[in-house]
Amino acid sequence: MEIDPWGSDLIEYDKTIKEFGLELFDASRFTEPSTLMKRGMIFAGRGLNEISEAIKNKKKFYVLSGIQPSAEKIHIGTKMVVENIKYFQKMGGKTFIVIADVEASATRNLTIEEAQQSALNFHIPAYIALGLDPKKTTFYFQSENMTVHKLSTLFSQKITENEFKGLYGDHNIAKTLAVLNQMGDIFYPQYAEGPAPTIIPCGIDQDPHIRLARDLARKFKDLNFYSPSSVFNKFTPSLDGKRKMSKSIPDSCVFLPDDDYKRKIMRALTGGRDNVEEQKKLGGNPDACMIFELYKEYFVEDDEKLKDIYTRCRKGKLLCGEDKQYACGVVGEFMEKLKDKMSRVKTSDLKFVTK
Amino acid sequence: MEIDPWGSDLIEYDKTIKEFGLELFDASRFTEPSTLMKRGMIFAGRGLNEISEAIKNKKKFYVLSGIQPSAEKIHIGTKMVVENIKYFQKMGGKTFIVIADVEASATRNLTIEEAQQSALNFHIPAYIALGLDPKKTTFYFQSENMTVHKLSTLFSQKITENEFKGLYGDHNIAKTLAVLNQMGDIFYPQYAEGPAPTIIPCGIDQDPHIRLARDLARKFKDLNFYSPSSVFNKFTPSLDGKRKMSKSIPDSCVFLPDDDYKRKIMRALTGGRDNVEEQKKLGGNPDACMIFELYKEYFVEDDEKLKDIYTRCRKGKLLCGEDKQYACGVVGEFMEKLKDKMSRVKTSDLKFVTK
Repeated sequence: MEIDPWGSDLIEYDKTIKEFGLELFDASRFTEPSTLMKRGMIFAGRGLNEISEAIKNKKKFYVLSGIQPSAEKIHIGTKMVVENIKYFQKMGGKTFIVIADVEASATRNLTIEEAQQSALNFHIPAYIALGLDPKKTTFYFQSENMTVHKLSTLFSQKITENEFKGLYGDHNIAKTLAVLNQMGDIFYPQYAEGPAPTIIPCGIDQDPHIRLARDLARKFKDLNFYSPSSVFNKFTPSLDGKRKMSKSIPDSCVFLPDDDYKRKIMRALTGGRDNVEEQKKLGGNPDACMIFELYKEYFVEDDEKLKDIYTRCRKGKLLCGEDKQYACGVVGEFMEKLKDKMSRVKTSDLKFVTK
Repeated sequence: MEIDPWGSDLIEYDKTIKEFGLELFDASRFTEPSTLMKRGMIFAGRGLNEISEAIKNKKKFYVLSGIQPSAEKIHIGTKMVVENIKYFQKMGGKTFIVIADVEASATRNLTIEEAQQSALNFHIPAYIALGLDPKKTTFYFQSENMTVHKLSTLFSQKITENEFKGLYGDHNIAKTLAVLNQMGDIFYPQYAEGPAPTIIPCGIDQDPHIRLARDLARKFKDLNFYSPSSVFNKFTPSLDGKRKMSKSIPDSCVFLPDDDYKRKIMRALTGGRDNVEEQKKLGGNPDACMIFELYKEYFVEDDEKLKDIYTRCRKGKLLCGEDKQYACGVVGEFMEKLKDKMSRVKTSDLKFVTK
């Protein structure tokens, strides 16, 4: 079994934890755990103790995440990323957001300038509309941060081909460089503002990067870097439940914002029975329902409300048609608010660091 | 046969030209060819026609070279590099000198700042003392030029592992990154100031880079870059004639400057006979003499003077002892002038471009 940071399959989480020696995520160890944490959407991590202790003891730590501004399109999964960032930001983490314009330009056939515009016009407003606090966040463009470039060159000296192959399998030159840039990004906060624990909320597909970065912290002892930590969120399944959501399959996902959400919701896989009579008799299965998945991950913050939906579905009192109407209302309201907030974000005030 | 940019063996030039499909260098095709050109020290190149035509027709072209400021030590071979740059600079080429501080830092265990200081205190003054015209030259530090970084990332997308292996054999991650940076450097002038032929005077050990860069110009057609051109100089043999000069074997070379030059000259290999009588009778062999090599490459600009030395040696009229005394005088005078000039260079006035 191999984890491919560039793949898009769903993951068997328990097996993954064992096979890769991940730490099981225990929400109770974290101060004021977030809804996503409590609902099991964060399933594992690395170096969790450094972070939970830093939060508990109000010590300095960093939160790091990245935006790849390849097109003005993100799906609902981004909301989970931002929620995770927001939690650590609220707990005192100084936040760094790297805008991967170089990578976007190199891999997606657009210029650096177009990638930057896409970030300024769309991605950053979306993050801020979703609740990222720009006042507590340092932004930078990958193309304009020389420190990241210096770090990646430095790191390249102590990464062997074998280690690379072990982590990434067959890789080409572009992947090699992308990984090196990412290593520069991961340690940028510590290099720029002094060593401290760094939490990277991400999907398990990013684990090879986390492992490589943790190796580098050991290899470059004289830099006094903390090994970076990670929390891994579960992937949101596609609306047909067959794989993970993917931007490249529009019907698989809910975009942010999405004007076609009603049609998608009406077509989504549910845990309903073959017919109404049967469902009223036997009840539905919310655990297999993509609509319930959306509630749990994104749209129903109130635990009581979520439990009520779950119970009524189980008991056959909430039928899929009615529930989908409800979902359309909730999602529609969310989309309107999001669009409104995004339109009011001004990115012209933001400062981007360059070293 | 493989050319290794990181090796230090001497090269069989004729064989090299055939095997790698180089163009034979023909000094008569170049306007006002330099002494080194006329003396056969430039033996081959690639894309020579673009450059000789640009010179002839007074069209725009660039000259590119690099300094690796790893230690405050260079040998006499650097004089040949600078002479070549000077020729093209005199012929109208806009000159770019990249200070490879990132590479120096990554490979030689010094900080970026130390590498920059080494360049400012020593390498750049040496180049200027050797005749580089700073007013016609654009300098930049690799660590501070984001355009180079952007270009190298862009190029990484279209270099395959197979191509890399074909050119560089087994390579590690650090070499990969160093090569990508070099590709960024090679096209920097054209990216920054518009497409034009670019001449890179270098040793044949750099040919893999030239070939890769020429491939990239073909692959990235929409950038409208000219394929870079090169002239390859011969290597100066070590003072014992056994290999090429190498900084890491101090007795193999004359440094710039060198306070130990007398001892080294007195010990150098000559084309002398077993004893004075024999030499007076049979004559010496200047073609096998490292002192004559120094004259030809560096210290005797006047063709008549050089010919006189050659003839008198051949006829047994100039003996090795007398000649070495003369060499000490010439080299000593050169070293004094060089030190004086270097001490008078002010690098604080230089501007370094950052994009």
